[in-house]
Amino acid sequence: MKLSDIGERDAVQRILAEIAETVSSTNIGPGDDAAAIDLGAIYLVASTDMLAQKTHFLPQTSHHQMGWTVAAANLSDIAAMGAKPIGMLVSMGLPRNLEFESLDEIVQGILDCCQEAGTELLGGDTKEASEIVLTGTALGTVAKRSILLRRGAQPGDLLAVTGTLGLAAAGYQSLTKGLNAKRAERVLLEPRARVKEGQMLSTSGAVTSCMDISDGLALSVHALSEASRVGFEVDFGAVPVEKEVLEVAKQAGMKAEDLVLYFGGDYQLLFTFKQEGLNILRSRMGNAFTVIGRAKAGADNVLIKQGRMTQLERRGYEHFC
Amino acid sequence: MKLSDIGERDAVQRILAEIAETVSSTNIGPGDDAAAIDLGAIYLVASTDMLAQKTHFLPQTSHHQMGWTVAAANLSDIAAMGAKPIGMLVSMGLPRNLEFESLDEIVQGILDCCQEAGTELLGGDTKEASEIVLTGTALGTVAKRSILLRRGAQPGDLLAVTGTLGLAAAGYQSLTKGLNAKRAERVLLEPRARVKEGQMLSTSGAVTSCMDISDGLALSVHALSEASRVGFEVDFGAVPVEKEVLEVAKQAGMKAEDLVLYFGGDYQLLFTFKQEGLNILRSRMGNAFTVIGRAKAGADNVLIKQGRMTQLERRGYEHFC
Repeated sequence: MKLSDIGERDAVQRILAEIAETVSSTNIGPGDDAAAIDLGAIYLVASTDMLAQKTHFLPQTSHHQMGWTVAAANLSDIAAMGAKPIGMLVSMGLPRNLEFESLDEIVQGILDCCQEAGTELLGGDTKEASEIVLTGTALGTVAKRSILLRRGAQPGDLLAVTGTLGLAAAGYQSLTKGLNAKRAERVLLEPRARVKEGQMLSTSGAVTSCMDISDGLALSVHALSEASRVGFEVDFGAVPVEKEVLEVAKQAGMKAEDLVLYFGGDYQLLFTFKQEGLNILRSRMGNAFTVIGRAKAGADNVLIKQGRMTQLERRGYEHFC
Repeated sequence: MKLSDIGERDAVQRILAEIAETVSSTNIGPGDDAAAIDLGAIYLVASTDMLAQKTHFLPQTSHHQMGWTVAAANLSDIAAMGAKPIGMLVSMGLPRNLEFESLDEIVQGILDCCQEAGTELLGGDTKEASEIVLTGTALGTVAKRSILLRRGAQPGDLLAVTGTLGLAAAGYQSLTKGLNAKRAERVLLEPRARVKEGQMLSTSGAVTSCMDISDGLALSVHALSEASRVGFEVDFGAVPVEKEVLEVAKQAGMKAEDLVLYFGGDYQLLFTFKQEGLNILRSRMGNAFTVIGRAKAGADNVLIKQGRMTQLERRGYEHFC
């Protein structure tokens, strides 16, 4: 059975289950956006994310943007656990014929993204490889009681997202179809990890579960649902979407729904909280988040759109399909 | 200027210098085997090491051995800083046509190596890539005063290595020339990180500098020399070499010197200590290490062989040359 027959998600699920059995009870192993190691009063939160040129970057991506993105992808994972970043490492697989200047730009992209997130690049590794492959590791810490996990949502909790959704998908459509939606393109090529937002969520004490939305809202809702053993009602009309996304959808002849729910790349956070925590969160974060639904008993995830209720499809960005 | 024109070491040196300028003074950035982050009483030590199938693994390498090796390479880096491992992450770039069973074996190799080192695999990432690319991250902790760095050796300190050298090089010759030196082949394909030895060295209080020898003794001596700003005299006759290495050298028509000094892959530790610490180290480690030379003022690194003194060549395993 080849990986292409199974699909990334299923292959990964099987492997994660195997690894999870071996992890000691005080640490947090596979199943969340990052791992967490018990250091007494704090957890050390650590993520690793690999991006390969041919599979993960459009031809329009600059070397600076490749470096930026690998840092952002990892920072997004630890942000989803509520961690404050303390350092980054990046291993780089590089073709022999790469220009030194290009390597220099990759590193500058990593440094710039780290600086924006208030952390630093501490080292890495460079090796020969047949294409550019960048593997980042973001490290962070969070008080033990404040860590945000995918499990923890309970029926009645509100479901919310930071920022708006669909811009990265619109950027992808714009770049591949020449639609010139510059801001959307930039969101895709230079994603911002929600590092401050993650820390605000974790220290609020109001949040019951959290993850990032890098693989799309629909897959993320399903993941939160499975980890927390609740279902979700997502009100499509409440999902924050910018005008540019609707314009791109129209120009590309696509449904806005496909850009907003099933693509990903937005690097926003999806989280749940007790209704009584709404005021605390608003006072800390203002309008930096939007309530888009609610958790309920059961395992069903439904989408409410113009008064009609349908199943929220379990599809999104897949790496082996 | 392409990377192949510059060579890995020089390309890396330039990049490291760039990164080093941005690292805050309380952390330890590029220039050692791993990075270290100040967490108060302890350092968090973190390494990252990437291995790509075409460049780093012989065709005879099993998938289990690939997984084992990426774990060992990273554990060796944090062992060289004296850290106790607390967890491992591995990102895997995988071709679409890889068998699921092969992925499973890679993961089992990582798990087995982690278990041998007393630590655990906490998670990772899988992505599509054009060849198998494995990036590990080993995490460990060490008391701040006990950390081992490449800098710190002083004139008069003794230079020593753990274990014996040249077996991995002999294994490479055996595999590529069909010499059937099974034990040497196994050392190459299933390297053991000196995790316990690293911790014994760091807690002894006697060690003044340390690094691992994965790129060969000669390059490692030069690296320690540059970081500590001392020179070294290496007594070739004192370097511990097993009979199998000499036999393989003979069969392969090579000088033993080339296998012992200029190849690498042995994953031993190279370290310096004050002469008065010898008894402490012997009482803790017995004959698990061998004194092979001495630090002296200046920057020259010399090899003493059969009474003759020559420059210790600065060559070894190079990834882009």
